[in-house]
Amino acid sequence: VSLRVVGRSAELAGRGEEALALARSQMPVLDAIQAEVCAARPLDGHRISGCIHLTKEAGILVELLAAAGAEVAWTGGDEVSTQDDVGAALAARGVRVFGHRGMTTGEVRQAARETLGTFHRGPTLVLDNGGAMIGEVLDSRQRHPDLRGATEKTTEGIRQVREWDRRGLIDFPVISVNDIVTKWAVDNTYGTGQSTVDGIMRATGVLLAGKRFVVCGYGYVGRGVALRASGMGARVIVTCRSARTAVTARLAGFEVQSMDRAAAMADILCTATGYADVVTGRELDLLRSGAILCNTGRSVTEISLAELAARTERTRQTRAHVRRHFLRDGRYLDLLSGGGLVNLDAAEGNPSEVMDVTLAHQALAALRFGAGAVRLPPGVHDVEAQQDQTVATRKLAAMGVHWDER
Amino acid sequence: VSLRVVGRSAELAGRGEEALALARSQMPVLDAIQAEVCAARPLDGHRISGCIHLTKEAGILVELLAAAGAEVAWTGGDEVSTQDDVGAALAARGVRVFGHRGMTTGEVRQAARETLGTFHRGPTLVLDNGGAMIGEVLDSRQRHPDLRGATEKTTEGIRQVREWDRRGLIDFPVISVNDIVTKWAVDNTYGTGQSTVDGIMRATGVLLAGKRFVVCGYGYVGRGVALRASGMGARVIVTCRSARTAVTARLAGFEVQSMDRAAAMADILCTATGYADVVTGRELDLLRSGAILCNTGRSVTEISLAELAARTERTRQTRAHVRRHFLRDGRYLDLLSGGGLVNLDAAEGNPSEVMDVTLAHQALAALRFGAGAVRLPPGVHDVEAQQDQTVATRKLAAMGVHWDER
Amino acid sequence: VSLRVVGRSAELAGRGEEALALARSQMPVLDAIQAEVCAARPLDGHRISGCIHLTKEAGILVELLAAAGAEVAWTGGDEVSTQDDVGAALAARGVRVFGHRGMTTGEVRQAARETLGTFHRGPTLVLDNGGAMIGEVLDSRQRHPDLRGATEKTTEGIRQVREWDRRGLIDFPVISVNDIVTKWAVDNTYGTGQSTVDGIMRATGVLLAGKRFVVCGYGYVGRGVALRASGMGARVIVTCRSARTAVTARLAGFEVQSMDRAAAMADILCTATGYADVVTGRELDLLRSGAILCNTGRSVTEISLAELAARTERTRQTRAHVRRHFLRDGRYLDLLSGGGLVNLDAAEGNPSEVMDVTLAHQALAALRFGAGAVRLPPGVHDVEAQQDQTVATRKLAAMGVHWDER
Amino acid sequence: VSLRVVGRSAELAGRGEEALALARSQMPVLDAIQAEVCAARPLDGHRISGCIHLTKEAGILVELLAAAGAEVAWTGGDEVSTQDDVGAALAARGVRVFGHRGMTTGEVRQAARETLGTFHRGPTLVLDNGGAMIGEVLDSRQRHPDLRGATEKTTEGIRQVREWDRRGLIDFPVISVNDIVTKWAVDNTYGTGQSTVDGIMRATGVLLAGKRFVVCGYGYVGRGVALRASGMGARVIVTCRSARTAVTARLAGFEVQSMDRAAAMADILCTATGYADVVTGRELDLLRSGAILCNTGRSVTEISLAELAARTERTRQTRAHVRRHFLRDGRYLDLLSGGGLVNLDAAEGNPSEVMDVTLAHQALAALRFGAGAVRLPPGVHDVEAQQDQTVATRKLAAMGVHWDER
Repeated sequence: VSLRVVGRSAELAGRGEEALALARSQMPVLDAIQAEVCAARPLDGHRISGCIHLTKEAGILVELLAAAGAEVAWTGGDEVSTQDDVGAALAARGVRVFGHRGMTTGEVRQAARETLGTFHRGPTLVLDNGGAMIGEVLDSRQRHPDLRGATEKTTEGIRQVREWDRRGLIDFPVISVNDIVTKWAVDNTYGTGQSTVDGIMRATGVLLAGKRFVVCGYGYVGRGVALRASGMGARVIVTCRSARTAVTARLAGFEVQSMDRAAAMADILCTATGYADVVTGRELDLLRSGAILCNTGRSVTEISLAELAARTERTRQTRAHVRRHFLRDGRYLDLLSGGGLVNLDAAEGNPSEVMDVTLAHQALAALRFGAGAVRLPPGVHDVEAQQDQTVATRKLAAMGVHWDER
Repeated sequence: VSLRVVGRSAELAGRGEEALALARSQMPVLDAIQAEVCAARPLDGHRISGCIHLTKEAGILVELLAAAGAEVAWTGGDEVSTQDDVGAALAARGVRVFGHRGMTTGEVRQAARETLGTFHRGPTLVLDNGGAMIGEVLDSRQRHPDLRGATEKTTEGIRQVREWDRRGLIDFPVISVNDIVTKWAVDNTYGTGQSTVDGIMRATGVLLAGKRFVVCGYGYVGRGVALRASGMGARVIVTCRSARTAVTARLAGFEVQSMDRAAAMADILCTATGYADVVTGRELDLLRSGAILCNTGRSVTEISLAELAARTERTRQTRAHVRRHFLRDGRYLDLLSGGGLVNLDAAEGNPSEVMDVTLAHQALAALRFGAGAVRLPPGVHDVEAQQDQTVATRKLAAMGVHWDER
Repeated sequence: VSLRVVGRSAELAGRGEEALALARSQMPVLDAIQAEVCAARPLDGHRISGCIHLTKEAGILVELLAAAGAEVAWTGGDEVSTQDDVGAALAARGVRVFGHRGMTTGEVRQAARETLGTFHRGPTLVLDNGGAMIGEVLDSRQRHPDLRGATEKTTEGIRQVREWDRRGLIDFPVISVNDIVTKWAVDNTYGTGQSTVDGIMRATGVLLAGKRFVVCGYGYVGRGVALRASGMGARVIVTCRSARTAVTARLAGFEVQSMDRAAAMADILCTATGYADVVTGRELDLLRSGAILCNTGRSVTEISLAELAARTERTRQTRAHVRRHFLRDGRYLDLLSGGGLVNLDAAEGNPSEVMDVTLAHQALAALRFGAGAVRLPPGVHDVEAQQDQTVATRKLAAMGVHWDER
Repeated sequence: VSLRVVGRSAELAGRGEEALALARSQMPVLDAIQAEVCAARPLDGHRISGCIHLTKEAGILVELLAAAGAEVAWTGGDEVSTQDDVGAALAARGVRVFGHRGMTTGEVRQAARETLGTFHRGPTLVLDNGGAMIGEVLDSRQRHPDLRGATEKTTEGIRQVREWDRRGLIDFPVISVNDIVTKWAVDNTYGTGQSTVDGIMRATGVLLAGKRFVVCGYGYVGRGVALRASGMGARVIVTCRSARTAVTARLAGFEVQSMDRAAAMADILCTATGYADVVTGRELDLLRSGAILCNTGRSVTEISLAELAARTERTRQTRAHVRRHFLRDGRYLDLLSGGGLVNLDAAEGNPSEVMDVTLAHQALAALRFGAGAVRLPPGVHDVEAQQDQTVATRKLAAMGVHWDER
């Protein structure tokens, strides 16, 4: 059974076109790159298999790749992030789109395989997320004789590719589109910082001014959340595992506390550590009745749902994204978005203009495999500082910022 | 035809009960006042006619009045703000509720008349909003022989009552529940400041960090919007009509500009002046393509919709609260919430915990007509500083703030 | 013995001229008023007796009055604030200057009497500070037959004048140059806010980032100190006597605590209340060893020096403005500026550009007694909002702020 | 002629003891390290030659080294930073101190040579600043047969040592005490950020609130200056050479401008780039009359003094650290501290508690050559992350911050 999107209704594709137009109006960097490079069609003759969340923003990247001359096949790579209307619009333009919103995990994998297998002699270029498609390539390396390289955008995926490289499996260049100054700043600190606070306001409707707002973790994301919560008038309290991070947070003006003390004073507690079991039974027992719990870290496991369930007598969904847990000891706690990512669930995740930066890096990485570019040796390559400057320069122009190199 | 709510479905009332319970959990001040004064039933024998937006928060005030011994009749006083489920829940408890969501303007007035006329010999106490019900009383003064006083909560209503007083019409005490330190700070600056920025984020999903955010007006509301936009990382530019306000805004660290310059640089422009025609054709002609326009002032007229329409070729609704106006000169502007109040339309207005303060003042004003209180002479009376301290003290306790008078 | 400054050395006067030139370059508002009104000499025929701290900034006001046509006599009104070089420079130009730096309290009073008595038939106009000179006038009212009015610049002085007015003693107009929006904002919040934090840094050289900084009092001054300490990265904790002030401080994002808790956590504690005995034995016993104590309120008595002495075993002057008190219980506390005003003692008080606003109001008030002005009835008159707008407008122009009334 | 400090007056040494006691009370980390390691005397048998600015803070490091068992010889390494009283106090305790405040450049070098040559068979350990003493060692390697290693604390010194290492000259381990998270944060961003703003206030006495404050450069130092100026209410404008830094500054909420535009609007301009000729004739021609110019970067050359001189008609020293340049075109500019480091010249540089962190890293680096430590191979070694955590942990304890690793 093929999962390819064909013959979806023109009405769906029409809505997709609108979504793409809206996204494009907020993605000036990607738009400028397309305007500049497309005429020369540097990707002519390329066949690209992509496996990245098929949102309206990713759709703009796909359009660029096609406009640069490549044949493109795409799949979203997970169960829920595919926007069907965007998929339909791209399919109507000749992109080979696989899968749809609401696939099973098995179907997700099947769609990835079909995206990879749709080209005779396989893709020349793979754009990956989490290493899933590169893994498929390695399992059937001989079926992809024309492969010239790949890109990978996540920390976890890069870790995996480096492991394969140590085992001698990576005989093609892989560009790591991950550890980039503008990406960290724009995406993690300012993008996620805003969308997390936005998500909490949408979910709960509470006044942040004057609230004791505990942020667990003070990495790029935690810093962003602390800044924005403080900017809304909350009194921010930071907890973290590293002493030097604690010094930095304190000198930045935030209160730093032990987890026990922080939990005991929280009106709102937001985890942003990237680790599991940050809020365990111990912290749950210390929280004040009425405290709001949420997570914007990497995993649904930062708040221990099992420990929460063990203390819960009954629950009530008081708002769309708020489940009130009435505990056996008489307190109640409000859990947002079931402990999942509150910025994606209750707000909209990162805005188009943030994705503009991240996806522009994807586009420039892909173009390094195009006509006229220097050939890369096999192995993992970081994005060069120069590419970061290029994206930043275009972003500044788009923002209307006056700036010069003097 | 009576507009009284009777026999509404038990299911509707059930939902209303839930809404009231949720509101109560975030309104500790009103809750504490009720817990303290109800046992003595200080309003026994009182008949109260209220004409204030019938939200879930106002419902908590109504419950308090009833618990204090009063017979209560209530109407929302406008076309759209009545929450039918809350009305049904109150009706099920014996409150005489008039009107419903979606009345015509004529029906609104009829509902107010019926709320006033429902008691034999009329109400002993009127709780008013905008002077509408007090006006009705003056038109039929002889039919309200037992009237002992009224409260009024808006600036405009108080202006009207003082005018009547000058003409000798006010032969009963009216408490002005308006010019109160905690109300201005909590409600206007911090409540509306947050909900406006919240509304803009919900409406547009744009990143605020790095945006040129123009705030027109720097009163209690404008100050709040400027603080919160700045707190989200925007570069705030203030315009205002008064030189001394301009000095204050500048010393607070904000950039102050003329309207022309501000309009020419705005990524986002938010009006918060309380005056009409702040953004006229002149400013519309200066705005950059893609600018976002919105209003959180008192009236839909701060942005001149006629001037905007005159320049518009076509529009498209790009998001639920965003209408994109494509102008004849090739630019486009995004108008939020049709130029209405973006914090009410795109977000949720002021949270329950903010209304807690405002409505607590209403409750304490009403209780000044109850058993044991000093009799007030006819005319307009301000809320006493002592009442403000009382509400503030309770709010601090509810917030868990340690504080003493030393 | 006359205290009049005559024949002071040309060298002293020369230094005074330089000080005046420097001040003038930072006082564009007063400078602009002088440039505009002097030609018409509106104060021709006036004899002015002034009793206001004779700093270089006040010297610019004196120059303006003389340039406007008045004969001027001046005295500083206290023991220490007179800058002798400025006095000498003014004397060299014909101003009758009385007193000098380092007078006894008796001499201060004598200088005020001589300043008042120097004119035949007395002054036509008195510019007062604290009501001292107006009091002298009332004691010898018949000797001042030409008096047409006075100005008074302090809260305490105005309170005193109103009291005299109630007793029927004030038969001339007195303009209260005190309760003015720009004066409060510029002078108290931003002027004193900065100079206090400046004073603490100069006195101690400690890093403010990460310090627990307790501000006692949250009026205009306390707010300014809290803002600036927070702006230097300190974690600010506010204490105050009024619940509604506490709510405001908390919503502004500051931590609010009881005095006991605040004292127990302070790294730095700064009093800004205007009341005596804010830090008593109770607080002294709670402070951590090494805590820094200072005051920027109205009186040296905010920190109880007697209670501190009672607990002190020995002291050492560790820096110019720091006395380290080694307590009997083994702790030590660092007292800045002997508990006096740390912003005046360790820093320089309010800068010229701040005094520019305050003294411009003095000048405009004086000019209301000049040619062409409307005659004022006897009694106390507030500065009109219009005058505040005028000063603010000029200040904005001087700051180069683009601003308009639209 | 030996430059050794011997027989300096007991009175001088007494003052030095007081300075050391004051410093120690603000350097809890170094104090705790001493308390912990001294008993075991891990540096017994070591002979240490140090060449680091001999301030009271460095004196605490010297005391620690001696208490740990080492024989210590020390020199300040430059013309002006040696505090003679501290030198005398250390000499009185047996430390071999060379040089004094106000040496010629030749004497500085001679003092370094004597410090190195004072021990028979030379030092076992060298603590260097800028590579000067390590260079002397290389010039006479055979005279230092017992040398076991060195530390170097500056970026420039490390660059030099690595160059020597590439040429095969470094046959002993050198620990680079430079690229350390807490050092950058505490020392550069928060330390220098505060002291620069402090220096500007002390030098000029101007109100920062509302000023247009241009910061050239947005590295660790520039960021700190921008944060603190903004915290004092200034409107901060950033210029920088790198696009990605510009994006970061803008998202942090600061205005970013080209040098031309920034110069044209500056009330205050502060260079913090580390490069020469940031303010050239071009910028000087664009500045507004009355603008304040200062530097907190690495060199007196950031503001071109030659270009300024070429435009200057005459100058006047208006305050201790302010020279007013009256330009030929009628404007005037105020240059602070002659274009040198305003934070060191007009304020006091970094406070003791900041140096506590930096010098604690020096101490721990030295202790890695002591008894029980793992032997390091020749070449350059970075400070390990673990050492940074150790220092941070002790600093947090000293600050009284509650923190845990959960």
